[in-house]
Amino acid sequence: MAAQLIQRRDEWRAALDDARRRGATVGLVLTMGSLHGGHLSLIRRARADHGWVAVTDYVNPLQFGDPADLAAYPRDVEADVAAAAEAGADAVFAPSVEEMWPEPPATTVTVGVTAGRLEDTARPGHLAGVATIVTKLFSLAGPVTTYFGEKDYQQLLVVRRLVADLSLPVTVVGCPTVRETDGLALSSRNTRIDPADRRAAGALYRALLAGKRAIEEDGAVERAKVEAAMAAVVEAEPALALDYAAAADPADLSTPATLTGEVRLLVAARLGPVRLIDNLGATVPGRDRDEEEG
Amino acid sequence: MAAQLIQRRDEWRAALDDARRRGATVGLVLTMGSLHGGHLSLIRRARADHGWVAVTDYVNPLQFGDPADLAAYPRDVEADVAAAAEAGADAVFAPSVEEMWPEPPATTVTVGVTAGRLEDTARPGHLAGVATIVTKLFSLAGPVTTYFGEKDYQQLLVVRRLVADLSLPVTVVGCPTVRETDGLALSSRNTRIDPADRRAAGALYRALLAGKRAIEEDGAVERAKVEAAMAAVVEAEPALALDYAAAADPADLSTPATLTGEVRLLVAARLGPVRLIDNLGATVPGRDRDEEEG
Repeated sequence: MAAQLIQRRDEWRAALDDARRRGATVGLVLTMGSLHGGHLSLIRRARADHGWVAVTDYVNPLQFGDPADLAAYPRDVEADVAAAAEAGADAVFAPSVEEMWPEPPATTVTVGVTAGRLEDTARPGHLAGVATIVTKLFSLAGPVTTYFGEKDYQQLLVVRRLVADLSLPVTVVGCPTVRETDGLALSSRNTRIDPADRRAAGALYRALLAGKRAIEEDGAVERAKVEAAMAAVVEAEPALALDYAAAADPADLSTPATLTGEVRLLVAARLGPVRLIDNLGATVPGRDRDEEEG
Repeated sequence: MAAQLIQRRDEWRAALDDARRRGATVGLVLTMGSLHGGHLSLIRRARADHGWVAVTDYVNPLQFGDPADLAAYPRDVEADVAAAAEAGADAVFAPSVEEMWPEPPATTVTVGVTAGRLEDTARPGHLAGVATIVTKLFSLAGPVTTYFGEKDYQQLLVVRRLVADLSLPVTVVGCPTVRETDGLALSSRNTRIDPADRRAAGALYRALLAGKRAIEEDGAVERAKVEAAMAAVVEAEPALALDYAAAADPADLSTPATLTGEVRLLVAARLGPVRLIDNLGATVPGRDRDEEEG
């Protein structure tokens, strides 16, 4: 199986319009290339659900605050096209920056649903850069169902909200994070982890599991207590520098003092030059039962 | 001739999709209702160019900084539908605020092309409110050609730029301002002018003509001199309070000290409770000839 490589915006739009004209629904997976098992699981899911599968492969400068991070971001379009095709993609859109922005963009899409929280504080401008490019890529794609990994949970909230707020003809499906055997969430940045540090990276997931246990088994409802349990696991690894360990409302990442119902646990840490993030859902016990009884 | 009145977003999207499926191209005119001759000229133009003509009629709260201005904005959907139909509209979309925003929007589209200039300073947040609702209305409409009056010149620049930056499947056509016999640009706000002040309102257009004469007949190239000539005409009317009189680059409304080539003249003033704006193109003489000779 081969996937068509498309580099021009007008050809991309025409290819998707053409697929729809032939009666197919279109599944869309947005990536910055460097496809790993997480991306491939999204492409396979799109393949299972749709007659035509579109993958974008574009490293978006707008979402990088740090030029060094942008420069270091791995790129191999040929390998991406082969991997995407193998997973079921019909076409891959890999435009140049100049093709995407013939003149520097003057337009910014900001989504305030999680403003000032976690990644929005840690990486100023990052989520606006994501929202802007995602809006443009959705506009180029037209009516689609799109698949996003839950690994970038805050990004998923932003994308869902901009689709709703701007009435984009897009259905957003969140998909489970794909992990290594030690729980490390797959990420294109993982290739930059020093092999000597690799073992420590598993602590992010262990921290999330510790937070989940604190809530679901130990009955902790104080946010500070749950966050301390998570932080302790990360801080036990000298190679990791904790950025945040948070127990938050899954809808907007606000952080009430007392946890109830569904909770999202999120963690971010630096491992040498690499910043890692991960998250997991947890449920404060008893609430569902109470509601059923009420 | 009657036009269909549609109030729900999903029905609106379906109506436009259906028209395109039947082979029509769609012309779109965005309004806040209170249709006057300016709007009708846009609808007639859309009618001449397209098989199906769509008009939106929505007073967008996001673009009003002043709640009193929003409350005072005239509304008469029934009259709008009749007038739009008469001018050639096939359907009018008049949603409630609750239909447009089932929850308060968290998403904002900002277009920096004229940031900090003229209306962007005079009405903070106004152009972002326009850009946000226009992006949403374009998203609901799908591929269209849209017609905007040049009367809101800065808005036209913002709309053109957001369409380009976000690759929206929209062609933007700017259309000439429609005027009363004394030159007053048609505006829904004109109905709120005190009859005793009505005569003074013509001074905005006379100021633009004075600026154009200064450039094209008197050979003025100093921006300050042209702006002073315009301001003097407005200030000669005691009922008018000048907001700005500007001679600017037509591409981004920057204001070089020395004018060259194409110039956009723009004026804003208050007349009692009503704020009026207007603009006009002018050309610094000689440049075209020089270029032809060069």
